[in-house]
Amino acid sequence: MQTVHKIEELRKIVSSARNADKSVGLVPTMGYFHEGHLSLMRAARRENDLVVASIFVNPIQFGAGEDLDKYPRDLDRDAQLAESVGVDVIFTPSSEEMYPSSFSTYLDVEKITDALCGARRPGHFRGVATVVLKLLNIVQPDRAYFGMKDYQQLKVIQRMVADLNVPVDIVPMPIVRESDGLAMSSRNSYLSPEERKSALILSKSLARAQELIDGGVTSGEELQHEIEEFIAGEPLAKIEYVSVVHSVTLESVSNVTDKILLALCVHIGKTRLIDNALLTRG
Amino acid sequence: MQTVHKIEELRKIVSSARNADKSVGLVPTMGYFHEGHLSLMRAARRENDLVVASIFVNPIQFGAGEDLDKYPRDLDRDAQLAESVGVDVIFTPSSEEMYPSSFSTYLDVEKITDALCGARRPGHFRGVATVVLKLLNIVQPDRAYFGMKDYQQLKVIQRMVADLNVPVDIVPMPIVRESDGLAMSSRNSYLSPEERKSALILSKSLARAQELIDGGVTSGEELQHEIEEFIAGEPLAKIEYVSVVHSVTLESVSNVTDKILLALCVHIGKTRLIDNALLTRG
Repeated sequence: MQTVHKIEELRKIVSSARNADKSVGLVPTMGYFHEGHLSLMRAARRENDLVVASIFVNPIQFGAGEDLDKYPRDLDRDAQLAESVGVDVIFTPSSEEMYPSSFSTYLDVEKITDALCGARRPGHFRGVATVVLKLLNIVQPDRAYFGMKDYQQLKVIQRMVADLNVPVDIVPMPIVRESDGLAMSSRNSYLSPEERKSALILSKSLARAQELIDGGVTSGEELQHEIEEFIAGEPLAKIEYVSVVHSVTLESVSNVTDKILLALCVHIGKTRLIDNALLTRG
Repeated sequence: MQTVHKIEELRKIVSSARNADKSVGLVPTMGYFHEGHLSLMRAARRENDLVVASIFVNPIQFGAGEDLDKYPRDLDRDAQLAESVGVDVIFTPSSEEMYPSSFSTYLDVEKITDALCGARRPGHFRGVATVVLKLLNIVQPDRAYFGMKDYQQLKVIQRMVADLNVPVDIVPMPIVRESDGLAMSSRNSYLSPEERKSALILSKSLARAQELIDGGVTSGEELQHEIEEFIAGEPLAKIEYVSVVHSVTLESVSNVTDKILLALCVHIGKTRLIDNALLTRG
């Protein structure tokens, strides 16, 4: 496995692979790998000849007061894990390599960013869409892999790729959970043992919502209120949002139909956690 | 020569050319060809195996009250002219093909768009950058050709391509002029015979500015005022801007140094014309 810091060096590696008719898979990450990341890399390994995983804590997707500086990093451990699942190249550029001082081009994906995290983190998805497009242009992969835990991010990237005719297949991958249900996240490392227990309220809420639907709840608003009350029962949890939305447009829905996403953002102590599930009506 | 309306059809043509190791050149246009356009196509013909010229009057770069509806169109004549200079494929998609109803992704190129036309046509360069990136992603050319008459457009595209790591060479081509000096423009077709004569005030101003510099003028402000007075002497002309700017950043300059651009926007009757020149200090 190679570790590459420079865009031009990575371009050469990918270009010689492509000249040899090899397919290329990209797994864009911010590092501090967990099983969720590794599941993306394994899928990329199965489906491509050359697998590139990028590690870049993208400053322009963090707002003022967010956790850019304390975001967890461990490149040595990440490199070992990536190699263990068959990644060929780690691409880990500096901020200066990605954003020279003259940098001034940004992507705005409208409408779909009005809800959920987009509504609470101004500029976040602008930063995400911009860095992902840069990575897609640098690597020019056949396929790029994204986890469904960041569901809105996935939808923003799919929208951007379709709108701008970017020649890549975006491959969504299911959320990977701890055995007790907690969705894997690099930010779980912030949790104290007590908070770690409280954090289960997110996955429990998703299960509870499915139960409510199975029990006959058909109003999006009722579902939301029930889940808000359920979470309020957990003393360490503070709700940022509980949203019942259409799974494609991310617009609020009044009736629970087939394509419903329940998206949660809950603070446990100082840690902001998200989770979601597609809910089905039997 | 083929004429193609659908993105997928164009992708197939380009992709089979590329599989045969052919280089691809793109000339993005809004049609109604003049010698300026043809000079881009001739350059593309010389430097590439496959030449694609796109014709698309891009609605999202026109503001309210601008000339989208009356913008001149003549596809049959354009096709003949393109074929005469060796273009292989005309790509002329519909607005619906380029912007389906779900479309919601836009590019913002900041700073460089604060001056000149960017300051007067809000959203114009957003529309330009977005459509050019779409065309680059659809065609994936080795080289794309842009005229220097739309100097700020060229700079916006160069900035966007560098910032987003788009793998293409942007090739700037010099302004092509009528024998009396008028810069070629599809919008020249709007001019009455009398207006056509008045329109020479633009190219004359550029020559006058070089004379002033050769005569010792070193202040950007003085140069601007002299040219404004010069244009005021032409009864049919109404100044939108006369700007003395740095040729890379497009920021105003107080002293006339080596890398100065004089950019003009003058209305002749109802027709908005632009012209520019790089000025040199002997």
